[in-house]
Amino acid sequence: MTPRDLEHELAKLESAHLKRVRRTPQNPCGPEMVLDGRSLVAFASNDYLGLANDPALKQGAITAVEHWGVGAGASPLVSGRLEIFDVLEQRLAEFAQREAALFFPSGFQANLGVLTALTDRHDVIFADRVNHASLIDGALLARAEHCRYQHTDLADLKRKLETTPLSQGGARLIVTDSVFSMDGDEAPLRDLLALAEQYDAWLVVDDAHGLGVLGPKGRGSIADAGLPAHPNLVMIGTLGKAAGVSGAFVAGQRNVIEWLIQRARSYIYTTGPSPIIAGALLASIDRILEGDDLRAQLQDHIARLRAGIARLNLPFALLPSRTGIQALVIGDNAQTLQIANRLLDLGYWVPAIRPPTVAVGSARLRISLSAAHSSAHIDGLIKALGKAV
Amino acid sequence: MTPRDLEHELAKLESAHLKRVRRTPQNPCGPEMVLDGRSLVAFASNDYLGLANDPALKQGAITAVEHWGVGAGASPLVSGRLEIFDVLEQRLAEFAQREAALFFPSGFQANLGVLTALTDRHDVIFADRVNHASLIDGALLARAEHCRYQHTDLADLKRKLETTPLSQGGARLIVTDSVFSMDGDEAPLRDLLALAEQYDAWLVVDDAHGLGVLGPKGRGSIADAGLPAHPNLVMIGTLGKAAGVSGAFVAGQRNVIEWLIQRARSYIYTTGPSPIIAGALLASIDRILEGDDLRAQLQDHIARLRAGIARLNLPFALLPSRTGIQALVIGDNAQTLQIANRLLDLGYWVPAIRPPTVAVGSARLRISLSAAHSSAHIDGLIKALGKAV
Repeated sequence: MTPRDLEHELAKLESAHLKRVRRTPQNPCGPEMVLDGRSLVAFASNDYLGLANDPALKQGAITAVEHWGVGAGASPLVSGRLEIFDVLEQRLAEFAQREAALFFPSGFQANLGVLTALTDRHDVIFADRVNHASLIDGALLARAEHCRYQHTDLADLKRKLETTPLSQGGARLIVTDSVFSMDGDEAPLRDLLALAEQYDAWLVVDDAHGLGVLGPKGRGSIADAGLPAHPNLVMIGTLGKAAGVSGAFVAGQRNVIEWLIQRARSYIYTTGPSPIIAGALLASIDRILEGDDLRAQLQDHIARLRAGIARLNLPFALLPSRTGIQALVIGDNAQTLQIANRLLDLGYWVPAIRPPTVAVGSARLRISLSAAHSSAHIDGLIKALGKAV
Repeated sequence: MTPRDLEHELAKLESAHLKRVRRTPQNPCGPEMVLDGRSLVAFASNDYLGLANDPALKQGAITAVEHWGVGAGASPLVSGRLEIFDVLEQRLAEFAQREAALFFPSGFQANLGVLTALTDRHDVIFADRVNHASLIDGALLARAEHCRYQHTDLADLKRKLETTPLSQGGARLIVTDSVFSMDGDEAPLRDLLALAEQYDAWLVVDDAHGLGVLGPKGRGSIADAGLPAHPNLVMIGTLGKAAGVSGAFVAGQRNVIEWLIQRARSYIYTTGPSPIIAGALLASIDRILEGDDLRAQLQDHIARLRAGIARLNLPFALLPSRTGIQALVIGDNAQTLQIANRLLDLGYWVPAIRPPTVAVGSARLRISLSAAHSSAHIDGLIKALGKAV
């Protein structure tokens, strides 16, 4: 597209009703958000434990600002790895129960870093078909062969592992989200690790939506599945969702982390994150570990929502999920949008997710639950859904 | 590389003396940094104005924490664009004197976002040979043809623009750093814009090391070159260097920014940055605009260092530069490392930059100057250099 073509391309999007418009909340992330001066109950964020506005995290950030200032000033490979990041990486490794951890500015950069450092054009990446966009981009950037298997389909993966030829010296890598972001369902991690072992493959698990929510003390999907530290297993944990802040980390065997320090360009060629983020995250890890009450609250909300929607007897499927992501599949794009708009009129903000983000014919409401919601918020949403449909 | 191969690959790096080791400062980013309990004068960070530890920025961060909490909770396209980011983007657009601006979690993600949104496999990217790694990765991820021209060589670029065939409907994009990160020299922006106009090409300028340092009120290289707002011109400004915090922005015509919101996957599929970062950056923009004293201080240090090194009559070239990046080219890898280590013994931390980061035979000391340095720091470094060589 040349600069001259731009206006035409934008007009095409507009006329196809495909132009995205950003909404700008006028208050902090939380269960009630103000849009255009109007207070709404929001089921839109990934702040599953309600930590984005937690007093302990705020204090952690303030303490870090006062001591460490606001910037790292350089790449972590030059002078930007301030000691607070060393402390954070040790805490993250302990939290994830792995040997070592590496902190990245974002989940996007962590995913790019892991896939490009572990694979190259001689290798094959086997990826769940509905993995997150950043994992797709990471595979592309690695220039590995990108072989996508049917969603959570072990038989299809095994067939592809068996039949996809490997060039000499080439390696295999299996990559999956633990909890899928638009469905709320989960990858069969134990079976995936068994396959990875069998085929001498890496298993990379992006625990963006499991961390903080699943597993003992909120240690995430890998702990929930009881997977031990394993040389083939690499975990990515996102810290901008249940952890309430921003950034991400990779955890695994010490030599995997060492390799990322040597080879992950999205780690090496980027300024170290602000030490304030590290301060907030150190407090967040404490809150997650001690947050069984928050997880119980979230599970109560999940049960309440699911029972309430079942009572409505809607002609739509609520996908099975024990996570903060509850997807009500409407199917038709226009109808999904219409219901979302009616909910908005009734004071409830629930994102409508349409193709290409999800498969054609599976447009849906993505209801995000948080421990910060109250039971009244959930009951209100159920009632509004009954009216809006 | 399979999991089994990893240990061997790490051992190979180790035995070739290519293994990178991170150093971990025990105090905040500043002109004096503590490593392993020892205080050193550091010429290692990109904190050219000394803002990474500035009281006004710290206060801006604290005010933002108190009001906005620590996390955005979601992608800016869902509910993560809190109003403080709207304010920030407006201020950034004013600062850059462009119609609109878009804030990204990092320069790395901004560069990937711009190149992948503006080009695809039908297009050709013309890139300066020594552009930053993230621009190379962006071109790769865009899958455009990647045509690299000789460093700042307009004749070579013109030849390549003329002779590189374009597929039907294909477009051209020229991309350059404004100030090159390992040399400190500058791209000929006015001439590049003229070529971009002539060939109906985009011109993308990454002002990572010019912003805050060059141009009236520190508005950066594009303002310094007097380039007007122009439909072909897209500016990227990094906020983790002279601005002292983290993140980056893209500035340009309103419809370019609108297109990035629609198409930049590294903007869409990532959690919005922490509102704390926005708070610190709003204070940073004020400090940059009112910081003529800081820029004068930096220019004094540059002149003092260059005069001092000239007096030493070293057999090495100090590359021409009016920026915070002063590169003393030693040539030989081992000798460069030896001098850097002697400087460290004398209490001065100056990074040794070797291939592949720079061309073979051009290993160098990269001396980073900051307004936060004192004249005594500069004089001390000159004296130490005289001893170390």
